[in-house]
Amino acid sequence: MAPALKVFGPARSTNVARVLVCLEEVGAEYELVDIDFAAREQKSPDHLKRNPFGQIPAFQDGDLLLFESRAIGKYILRKYKTSDADLLREGDLAEAAMVDVWTEVEAHQYNPALSPVVYECVIYPAIHGTPTNQRVVDESLEKLRKGLEVHEARLWESASLAGDFASFADLNHFPYTFYFMATPHAPLFDEYPHVKAWWERLMARPAIKKLAARMALLN
Amino acid sequence: MAPALKVFGPARSTNVARVLVCLEEVGAEYELVDIDFAAREQKSPDHLKRNPFGQIPAFQDGDLLLFESRAIGKYILRKYKTSDADLLREGDLAEAAMVDVWTEVEAHQYNPALSPVVYECVIYPAIHGTPTNQRVVDESLEKLRKGLEVHEARLWESASLAGDFASFADLNHFPYTFYFMATPHAPLFDEYPHVKAWWERLMARPAIKKLAARMALLN
Repeated sequence: MAPALKVFGPARSTNVARVLVCLEEVGAEYELVDIDFAAREQKSPDHLKRNPFGQIPAFQDGDLLLFESRAIGKYILRKYKTSDADLLREGDLAEAAMVDVWTEVEAHQYNPALSPVVYECVIYPAIHGTPTNQRVVDESLEKLRKGLEVHEARLWESASLAGDFASFADLNHFPYTFYFMATPHAPLFDEYPHVKAWWERLMARPAIKKLAARMALLN
Repeated sequence: MAPALKVFGPARSTNVARVLVCLEEVGAEYELVDIDFAAREQKSPDHLKRNPFGQIPAFQDGDLLLFESRAIGKYILRKYKTSDADLLREGDLAEAAMVDVWTEVEAHQYNPALSPVVYECVIYPAIHGTPTNQRVVDESLEKLRKGLEVHEARLWESASLAGDFASFADLNHFPYTFYFMATPHAPLFDEYPHVKAWWERLMARPAIKKLAARMALLN
């Protein structure tokens, strides 16, 4: 029997990987359904029912259709929560709040600074064959340095972003940072030793290792 | 006795208002502590302890310090949840997922399209006295139209974004849309009758009415 859970979009997409890492962390079975961008399948009526913005990922669990990668990730982590895999910590007000704070930091501070470097150095050259816009990269690295100082101070206080426990907040940093580490700017992380050690712990998680191997296609 | 909850930042700030609307919805008592931007108080050591990015809002509940407005809002809605005020619906997997989906849509689709119009037409002229950059406004309105089509289709299906119940996802649309309605582009919403009716229902909520009166300062 095919797994009930379906994820639509390729594993090498950062926002699809955001969902897959949650599925791998909880050990849920799922089917990955490719979307043919060359045929503009993401704008087809079938896909627009799943994701009205015509984007990836989309997600199906029986009759339930979801989109927006962070929302899908939370659904998965809630549904398959165990005492060993409680990555949202919603049973504890303060812990859940810290998971939310650092999830928002990833979305609104870290990713807007780091992802343009990934687009310019990895994604656009791979997909469109366009050269890197160095001005965009330089401005982004400047912002990223300021952000990494905040991460460094936080990871000096606690082993993971939300506290001394791995959480959804850490996982969300994986997909774009993974590709960042394939750019010439990866050594920037050496300047932030607590961030670097945290990243290495993240990369050692079995779920992340498995995803990283599948994403290596783009390198 | 002073209330235990403190919000740092002025009520007229959209991201502060995001927090205040949650406090007003659950009827929690709180103290609003102003931050003196002219004196760069947001970059002071005291404020950086609350918000390491030196931004507003910040939030204090006893020993717990939080930042990032959407994370603070969720903490408040979880802590003061009642059967009458359950705006996250975390007790129901599918409902909670739809709240998350439309909360993410606000953060990653709606707000990036609508907020530049608010900055260009309301906030920058008020704060810096700078003229409106019409190119930015035009490009944003183009994106906003596409987004409002998705909202319109959704609000044709259900009374509110996450389903037939008001939620955190709806509330998050309030602060920027409130200022958008003070721009010359407000009539755009008339083209989307379900969105317009939903907005009018939102504006009729007592918590929103109260906040709207406090934010009117900027108009």
